Amino acid sequence: MKDAAWSIGIDLGGTKIAAAFVGPGGEISHATVVPTNAGEGAQAIVDRIAALISDLRRSADKTPCSSVGIAVAGQVEAKTGTVFFAPNLDWHNFPLKAQLEKAVNLPVVVMNDVRAATYGEWLFGAGKGLQDFICLFVGTGIGGGVVTGGRLLEGKNNSAGELGHIVVDINGRQCSCGNHGCLESLASGWAIAKIAQELVLQRPNEGKALMSAVKGNLHALSAKEVCHLALEGDPLSLQIIDGVVEALTGGVVTLVNAFNPSHIILGGGFINGMPMIIERIAKPVKERGLKIATKNLSIVPVGLKVNAGVIGAAKFIGT
Amino acid sequence: MKDAAWSIGIDLGGTKIAAAFVGPGGEISHATVVPTNAGEGAQAIVDRIAALISDLRRSADKTPCSSVGIAVAGQVEAKTGTVFFAPNLDWHNFPLKAQLEKAVNLPVVVMNDVRAATYGEWLFGAGKGLQDFICLFVGTGIGGGVVTGGRLLEGKNNSAGELGHIVVDINGRQCSCGNHGCLESLASGWAIAKIAQELVLQRPNEGKALMSAVKGNLHALSAKEVCHLALEGDPLSLQIIDGVVEALTGGVVTLVNAFNPSHIILGGGFINGMPMIIERIAKPVKERGLKIATKNLSIVPVGLKVNAGVIGAAKFIGT
Repeated sequence: MKDAAWSIGIDLGGTKIAAAFVGPGGEISHATVVPTNAGEGAQAIVDRIAALISDLRRSADKTPCSSVGIAVAGQVEAKTGTVFFAPNLDWHNFPLKAQLEKAVNLPVVVMNDVRAATYGEWLFGAGKGLQDFICLFVGTGIGGGVVTGGRLLEGKNNSAGELGHIVVDINGRQCSCGNHGCLESLASGWAIAKIAQELVLQRPNEGKALMSAVKGNLHALSAKEVCHLALEGDPLSLQIIDGVVEALTGGVVTLVNAFNPSHIILGGGFINGMPMIIERIAKPVKERGLKIATKNLSIVPVGLKVNAGVIGAAKFIGT
Repeated sequence: MKDAAWSIGIDLGGTKIAAAFVGPGGEISHATVVPTNAGEGAQAIVDRIAALISDLRRSADKTPCSSVGIAVAGQVEAKTGTVFFAPNLDWHNFPLKAQLEKAVNLPVVVMNDVRAATYGEWLFGAGKGLQDFICLFVGTGIGGGVVTGGRLLEGKNNSAGELGHIVVDINGRQCSCGNHGCLESLASGWAIAKIAQELVLQRPNEGKALMSAVKGNLHALSAKEVCHLALEGDPLSLQIIDGVVEALTGGVVTLVNAFNPSHIILGGGFINGMPMIIERIAKPVKERGLKIATKNLSIVPVGLKVNAGVIGAAKFIGT
């Protein structure tokens, strides 16, 4: 009956913590969001999550809760639930599962946030019923999750699916990870912002619309303005988006040829904000990928626009 | 007892067919090689393989043989054993399993050749006992096989592991598959030959050693001469090999970050002929790959230098 019970799902990000009860059919109840205040340190965050769980259980006191699943924007050791590295929280080797279980007296599962979202998509979203699919989430960063042969890939250290760090341009820009030419360094929110800032400096005339969108404050220029102005037809913004499409196409071809999934499921803030990008990627991927790998391939948007991480973490029963 | 029996393994390539009895411990007996003569067409090849199997069974008439495994340099449909596409044989949708079973009256398993070699490495080579590893074979072309979570990946259409066609340079050269910047277009035997021929034309002075190695016949210039002269210190050949190392490093970083294997196993004619390449790739991969993905990573040569495909195909019992 474990699957049929309600459980609590938590999505712990660098700026906010989302939490909710999740029902057997993926239904959300008592959803709540609080700020992470990452600067206060790990113990304060654990205390905040524990309080959040207490509040949830109190406010839904007729709902039996069997476990807590927590999705973290970082790399997690599967067995111990220790967060190996979470850049947005500045955590290194933090024993989140142990600390939180002590605090809330419930079994806690800790997992990577995009892998949790992939699991949520698998159960209740665009991956429902599929055996071979890949979720690629393009937001501030890029991450993913891979299901192949009916299993969510973990790899040796539980870090399989770091799809933002596949190399699509060996001569390319430096990535936040230190490598060069990673997909994330060319197509993520932070990369779009960086590329836009550089181009505006190099070509001030063409960059006028972008600069005026941030009232002349170059460092405030983000992917948001680029997307917005691209939709309005600004040539420089369109050119930046063309580069993003090119990089994403290369990355998706890599995934299609290496994993041979039936579906590529695209989500994350950037894709959700510009869903027409999916069609722009799908066409060249089908032309450039191997015939055998693309012959039954669908490239589709995520089914769960929000709460995929909360839902996936709550329902994850381990492998 | 299926595993304990002897079976026949066959490696069907574009130029030759290798066959042998393979014992329960991977031991080879009655190994034989005949030319493929691909130009004679599919039926002639099936007849030749059937005769080869007859001869093998006759010459080893005290060895019980339960099945035949055949490794093909092409894409294979798992259930039907139909060869979807084998460029070197010019086969499209050829029902090899059905044809061969009719001819030899034994159960036949058909599989991709590099995946068979990966399976051979898993059972008896450098992958023995591992749960998460990738074989990358760099020869005339580039192919691979992926084992993750203790399973050989197949993907939706049984084409997972086409690792020669991961994109490492979105602005790169055209590949034989039609795409641009695939690993194979920068680091395979055919690519090395093509790059060398172009460079010799562009820089005739620097290309003197290479041209003299082929007695002035540019079109005869192959990866073999480039490797040979690089080992002797010829600057242009060394520069070509540097480019290959760079591309392979990018490709292996992609594989390490996406799959998080414990081992990358490198083989194929190019690597076997220049084993020092492994160390040249291993160092930058460990620097450029994600910390969590590289912390237990080993990059090693194949254990079975020859017959990995014959052994793997003979022992493959399906998934």
